[in-house]
Amino acid sequence: MTTPLPPVGATTWVVADGYIPPSSTGPVPEMVSHDSVCMLNAGSVAASVDIHVFFTDRDPAGPLTVVIPAQRACHRRINDLGDGIVVPGVDYSLVLRSDVPIVVQHTRLDSRQAANALMSTIAYPAG
Amino acid sequence: MTTPLPPVGATTWVVADGYIPPSSTGPVPEMVSHDSVCMLNAGSVAASVDIHVFFTDRDPAGPLTVVIPAQRACHRRINDLGDGIVVPGVDYSLVLRSDVPIVVQHTRLDSRQAANALMSTIAYPAG
Amino acid sequence: MTTPLPPVGATTWVVADGYIPPSSTGPVPEMVSHDSVCMLNAGSVAASVDIHVFFTDRDPAGPLTVVIPAQRACHRRINDLGDGIVVPGVDYSLVLRSDVPIVVQHTRLDSRQAANALMSTIAYPAG
Amino acid sequence: MTTPLPPVGATTWVVADGYIPPSSTGPVPEMVSHDSVCMLNAGSVAASVDIHVFFTDRDPAGPLTVVIPAQRACHRRINDLGDGIVVPGVDYSLVLRSDVPIVVQHTRLDSRQAANALMSTIAYPAG
Repeated sequence: MTTPLPPVGATTWVVADGYIPPSSTGPVPEMVSHDSVCMLNAGSVAASVDIHVFFTDRDPAGPLTVVIPAQRACHRRINDLGDGIVVPGVDYSLVLRSDVPIVVQHTRLDSRQAANALMSTIAYPAG
Repeated sequence: MTTPLPPVGATTWVVADGYIPPSSTGPVPEMVSHDSVCMLNAGSVAASVDIHVFFTDRDPAGPLTVVIPAQRACHRRINDLGDGIVVPGVDYSLVLRSDVPIVVQHTRLDSRQAANALMSTIAYPAG
Repeated sequence: MTTPLPPVGATTWVVADGYIPPSSTGPVPEMVSHDSVCMLNAGSVAASVDIHVFFTDRDPAGPLTVVIPAQRACHRRINDLGDGIVVPGVDYSLVLRSDVPIVVQHTRLDSRQAANALMSTIAYPAG
Repeated sequence: MTTPLPPVGATTWVVADGYIPPSSTGPVPEMVSHDSVCMLNAGSVAASVDIHVFFTDRDPAGPLTVVIPAQRACHRRINDLGDGIVVPGVDYSLVLRSDVPIVVQHTRLDSRQAANALMSTIAYPAG
């Protein structure tokens, strides 16, 4: 095991282009169309991350809280966030707020057509 | 409804690689080739966003103004910006200037060939 | 014509993952596999951009100089930079240095297989 | 050969969304599904880069050390990092720490289905 690294990242992150494609081609679950937030807590204490969900036509929902243990990655499909807050086919955005520094990357797999498409970006570190 | 978050983001954003693929494969409208700017106004007052369009061979056009209500996401296809300023097949860039902080992500869906491609990036926060 | 915007961006930009896929599927030239640097000079004076090319196994080449007129976008395929410096199938990186602020986005179209793939990211603003 | 450029970049970089798709379609090695870290050391002294690997369910591994000569690009597939630390199909994140400034871009090629998908982002510069 490595010596813990100093904390890296920011405590507020934004994903502006949220959208879960509403259909899929290929085996379940790996090729199911999905949005993911991939988070790293490289520090030595657990991170508590509040995920706020924004929509185009109604008030924001959440926050949903995800706990990431110290020195752990956490890749979470938005499809599985729970509570039915985000449904396929609806535009949304996310603000993630953590009590310790983390890093967030946003990735989409779209398998609506016969060969899947991917996109990814480091989210926007807002503070 | 959640308590309003403090404003997050920047007031000037740049998308350098604008291009709407000029053909498409698949059902309309969801699989029509498009560029999108996905914007989040997480703050508690409406955002007025001026979109300036730059070309390779002529003077810039616009601005087109988009209003994003408080605490709302706004995902806008460039194809539908109006006024016929941006047409498929032409290279362009965008500068977006908002009166309050927002976050902007740029995404392209290209369905010219039989299975769509995607790309996305957080835009460049310029101030 | 719009009033000139203040200059936006940075003067040094880096693209780390350069690679031109060495084969293509589909019509020429639009579906030819390529890397592009998409640059915006939103300011009111022309930009002179020096492009330095780095390789894995030999000394860097260039700079190649590209001039972007005031208030213009410039989308340039690396395939067409000239001088045969970058050839398909070879890993490379780019450092771009401009005498005025610009914004740079890096995009790849890969049509080696039957339906094209895309990737894009705002380049790294280094100063 | 060009005059050496001043060093550009940062010394700590993060890739949050690590995942090597566990199957592939097409010729070996170019179309094998892979994650890559593409690094540029534009400076005039060699860079020693420690790569720390984080997982969702066990302690971090590494660091693996990669040396990048002065004025060289280094595109490294995670598949080939050695020591069997990262295996296809497992979620991970990376922290890269260099003794001199470098720039890091993260790219995935996914050829599980018949036409490959690509995604890329400049990694997060953490310090």
